[in-house]
Amino acid sequence: MDELTLIGLGTGNPEHLTLQAIGALKHCDLILIPHKGEEKRQLAEVREAIVATHVGATAPISFFSMPVRDPAIASYRKRVEAWHDAIAERWREAIAGHDGPARRVGLLVWGDPSLYDSSLRVAERLRSSLGFRLTVIPGITALQGLTAAHAIPLNAIGEPFTVTTGRRLREGGFPAGVDTIAVMLDGECSFQTLDPADLTIWWGAYVGMAEEITLAGPLADVGPRILETRAAARARHGWIMDIYILRRRS
Amino acid sequence: MDELTLIGLGTGNPEHLTLQAIGALKHCDLILIPHKGEEKRQLAEVREAIVATHVGATAPISFFSMPVRDPAIASYRKRVEAWHDAIAERWREAIAGHDGPARRVGLLVWGDPSLYDSSLRVAERLRSSLGFRLTVIPGITALQGLTAAHAIPLNAIGEPFTVTTGRRLREGGFPAGVDTIAVMLDGECSFQTLDPADLTIWWGAYVGMAEEITLAGPLADVGPRILETRAAARARHGWIMDIYILRRRS
Repeated sequence: MDELTLIGLGTGNPEHLTLQAIGALKHCDLILIPHKGEEKRQLAEVREAIVATHVGATAPISFFSMPVRDPAIASYRKRVEAWHDAIAERWREAIAGHDGPARRVGLLVWGDPSLYDSSLRVAERLRSSLGFRLTVIPGITALQGLTAAHAIPLNAIGEPFTVTTGRRLREGGFPAGVDTIAVMLDGECSFQTLDPADLTIWWGAYVGMAEEITLAGPLADVGPRILETRAAARARHGWIMDIYILRRRS
Repeated sequence: MDELTLIGLGTGNPEHLTLQAIGALKHCDLILIPHKGEEKRQLAEVREAIVATHVGATAPISFFSMPVRDPAIASYRKRVEAWHDAIAERWREAIAGHDGPARRVGLLVWGDPSLYDSSLRVAERLRSSLGFRLTVIPGITALQGLTAAHAIPLNAIGEPFTVTTGRRLREGGFPAGVDTIAVMLDGECSFQTLDPADLTIWWGAYVGMAEEITLAGPLADVGPRILETRAAARARHGWIMDIYILRRRS
């Protein structure tokens, strides 16, 4: 194995694919695609459709099932580290079990490999034993999908912003030193834990996909509508991915 | 005029272009391209080459010259606001002066329109008088170009990060509450104002382009090399665009 390429796909709109990503896909002699269980079957299907469109029906795909995090490990960080170890083992099995050449292996990454994604950390685990060259093809992130859907800038003029997680928002409140935050990995609508006065929200689910839903406005008014809309969409589709920006009046 | 589409191009690698951006370019009956003066001629040429490749040599392009910021306006924010007013006027002239239909107008934006870019704010100024639909096509940002070049994640596991500017870093130091920052719009290597102990830097100039240069390591060691490398590259090319990530040992 000479090279592992992590290929950013964008957020589910097949048109988010870059020319660089298409070139990399065609160059692979093995493409790894994760199965994350039934509820995210649709995400695997998006990946398969992209490969079929740009490489063809005979593309050399190997599927691997994603392990689940071990709830017995109390520390968040250690739980995630153990999960990355387990994913690395699945990659190793998928590569070793492939009946054909696997010198150039590609992995399709939702969004971009740099942003709240485990692939780079998993790849580093394999690199130490397998010794390949690791390359990254950037992809459109959910953040850019969200700002595009709302046609808004992420930062105020010359101002900073912080990207954080639902967990951090619940534990630490609205971060100090910035008036704009983007919140990812938030399955619990953690904006509910904030005082909504002076906060505006731009929310989106399934950004970039045909199912895209967006809501925006003062958090006090729009927050409850997001809760309802999110619950209904999740029930209808069986899964949801969402993201939001909060801006504080400075 | 029915629609203005801001089309994110990525960071100068023509392969950063998404299928969605190519589709939008082909759909326009007028494409606006800025001239930023001689030193950024190369950036305009990248845009022209992209249009020529995907739309053809007879693509309906209109050039406009970028105004300069008025140094007599002391307030940074007011200076930028006046500059956006002036850019809006140039767009209006370029559209009005176009000899042909201009129902669907496209503007090529370096990186992504949401991130430290003025196009959305300029477009809002015109929208109030011209009344068009404003759409955004997301593009690969310099941040993603940088993390891809270094093959690193932007965030530590489950941790937040802040995106800020050179000006803010000089005025406020390393932001509180985060251990990772990305610094944009920094013409002055503002990392020099920080105590380098415990800081690691990942720096890149011309990320995504053929001229790409990257350096990484402990800030104490690599900082001086970045200053030299940056000055030499700027002298050689006549211009530079760079970006970096700083991570503090927590």
